[in-house]
Amino acid sequence: MKIQNDLLLRTIKGEEVERPPVWLMRQAGRILPQYRAVRASLSSFKELVARPDLAAEVTIQPVDELGVDAAIIFSDILVIPEAMGLDYEMVEKKGPVFPKVIQSASDIERLQTGEPAAEKLEYVYAAVKETIHRLDGRVPLIGFSGAPWTLLAYMIEGQGSKTFSKAKKFLYQEPQLAHQLLEKISTAIIAYLKEKTKAGVHVVQLFDSWAGLLSPLQYKEFSLPYINAICDAINEVPVTVFAKGAWFILKDLSQTNCHTIGLDWNTSVPYAREQLGPNKILQGNLDPCQLYAPVENIEEQTLSMIRSFGSGHIVNLGHGVYPDTPLDGVKAFVNTVKNYNY
Amino acid sequence: MKIQNDLLLRTIKGEEVERPPVWLMRQAGRILPQYRAVRASLSSFKELVARPDLAAEVTIQPVDELGVDAAIIFSDILVIPEAMGLDYEMVEKKGPVFPKVIQSASDIERLQTGEPAAEKLEYVYAAVKETIHRLDGRVPLIGFSGAPWTLLAYMIEGQGSKTFSKAKKFLYQEPQLAHQLLEKISTAIIAYLKEKTKAGVHVVQLFDSWAGLLSPLQYKEFSLPYINAICDAINEVPVTVFAKGAWFILKDLSQTNCHTIGLDWNTSVPYAREQLGPNKILQGNLDPCQLYAPVENIEEQTLSMIRSFGSGHIVNLGHGVYPDTPLDGVKAFVNTVKNYNY
Repeated sequence: MKIQNDLLLRTIKGEEVERPPVWLMRQAGRILPQYRAVRASLSSFKELVARPDLAAEVTIQPVDELGVDAAIIFSDILVIPEAMGLDYEMVEKKGPVFPKVIQSASDIERLQTGEPAAEKLEYVYAAVKETIHRLDGRVPLIGFSGAPWTLLAYMIEGQGSKTFSKAKKFLYQEPQLAHQLLEKISTAIIAYLKEKTKAGVHVVQLFDSWAGLLSPLQYKEFSLPYINAICDAINEVPVTVFAKGAWFILKDLSQTNCHTIGLDWNTSVPYAREQLGPNKILQGNLDPCQLYAPVENIEEQTLSMIRSFGSGHIVNLGHGVYPDTPLDGVKAFVNTVKNYNY
Repeated sequence: MKIQNDLLLRTIKGEEVERPPVWLMRQAGRILPQYRAVRASLSSFKELVARPDLAAEVTIQPVDELGVDAAIIFSDILVIPEAMGLDYEMVEKKGPVFPKVIQSASDIERLQTGEPAAEKLEYVYAAVKETIHRLDGRVPLIGFSGAPWTLLAYMIEGQGSKTFSKAKKFLYQEPQLAHQLLEKISTAIIAYLKEKTKAGVHVVQLFDSWAGLLSPLQYKEFSLPYINAICDAINEVPVTVFAKGAWFILKDLSQTNCHTIGLDWNTSVPYAREQLGPNKILQGNLDPCQLYAPVENIEEQTLSMIRSFGSGHIVNLGHGVYPDTPLDGVKAFVNTVKNYNY
């Protein structure tokens, strides 16, 4: 199907474009009243993730309401651990909780991976197909997965944490088991992302949300090789890597087979370019809290960001948009980009 | 009083020393059974902070038990907001909670600052004097304060947070009020640190624990100028600045009148030296989770860290030691440094 607004895809290919494309991490979510209405009709967040018709509906809402240049399939990074056999609950105001966590070799052995794990996520592929059908070529659709270290962090820690010290302890105390687990997670991710591309996504993004908790040494041992393997395996569509807080590893990330690197709001463009060289497209990186500012200030800072990146840039925030962000702030951000001309 | 083990002070002066000094952030705390015994005899953490005799006792425990080269006065960064008029509670397993938070100009106006605020913290100065007396010159004593942005973050947010998005929203929406509040906090900190030096501390450290949440632009506007002012005002003793996660601002920190810069575990020595130049002493920066590893691995990584820093280095972790760290791991870390020779 021909994509009418293919600005994102042309930018990723390195073509000269008229302006940068714009979308927001977590754009399909609580910032939109339409989303809150759908969510209120259900008893749980996970029900929304598991319902292809509704997942497609909320995926498209930001395209309708905000006019962003890409949709990103509504889902959750923790569908992978669940498909591997580790159930989680989403607890209101607390976040994800795993009743059981991984502690031993036999826990790891019991986990499914590859195709058998990926097959459990038929509802995601159905949501992708439904979204592609309903979008009718308006904009490209992004699929995503958590990165292996970030998924391991939840599977060991059992819930969110400021330090993820239990998960990190596991890396230091049981490095071999950690590698076995990371290997299994990676194999599941690859099968999952391949199914997603078959279902129709045009780009995939890896979220290494807890990258910044690892030391450079640990990151090189326990995260980077698996990101590398995933980037090597996914040839069907371009891959974006967003390793939040991993400023110290950008040079190594530039060596992976990904097309785009997401940047958090701490990372300046000159630093990123120096580390990454000219061959990667950059995505980001306005401070999500900037959207709390008065509209004129948002416009000013968005323009300043666009100018500092120059070409080869996909506009986004440096993190997912926060749920209580005023819609007017989000619209000011998106419209500033859409009114820009290189 | 002559300090018998003055390795820390000689290192900060830039003298050639036989080995780097070593201490740990949060060394006076739950890693020590002696601390847990004292804590168990009291009904609250804040009672321990407010009792000079017991604060002195737990301050000295790591000198006795671990043989570290410095003591750091047992206290809390939130004594400053409290002395300014904003009470907090320490809730078990949750952390600090402020029943009232700062929301308006009149809230800020009501806060005390400078000497009147610092006078409320007589119990801290008493603890310092008692510690100095009991230490009897064995090692130097470090005093500390939260940095202005980090204290503002708690005073607005009201509790710990992954994003401190309420506090950051305040910076974006009410920049003038934020500056008024930061000014008042800074004035209180300066008066407080001056009283602490009068009471006898040999070094002071500023903890900017939430530095890494700000964008470089925000950090330059809302944190750096106040750290600068404090470093300029404290001439009595050397100042250490530990701005966690603020890798992007090290070059600017090198321009402040501080003597030592603390580094978190993400920051490599070559990067830090390139940013900071040769004139600052560096402190840090082993990953606190490294101390969960087997003892031989701790020794190996500690040696590797010492070698990578070279001279002008105070050994520490890259963050406060985690409460469940095995004591044997902590001792392996400390002893590796003590057995080292440049």
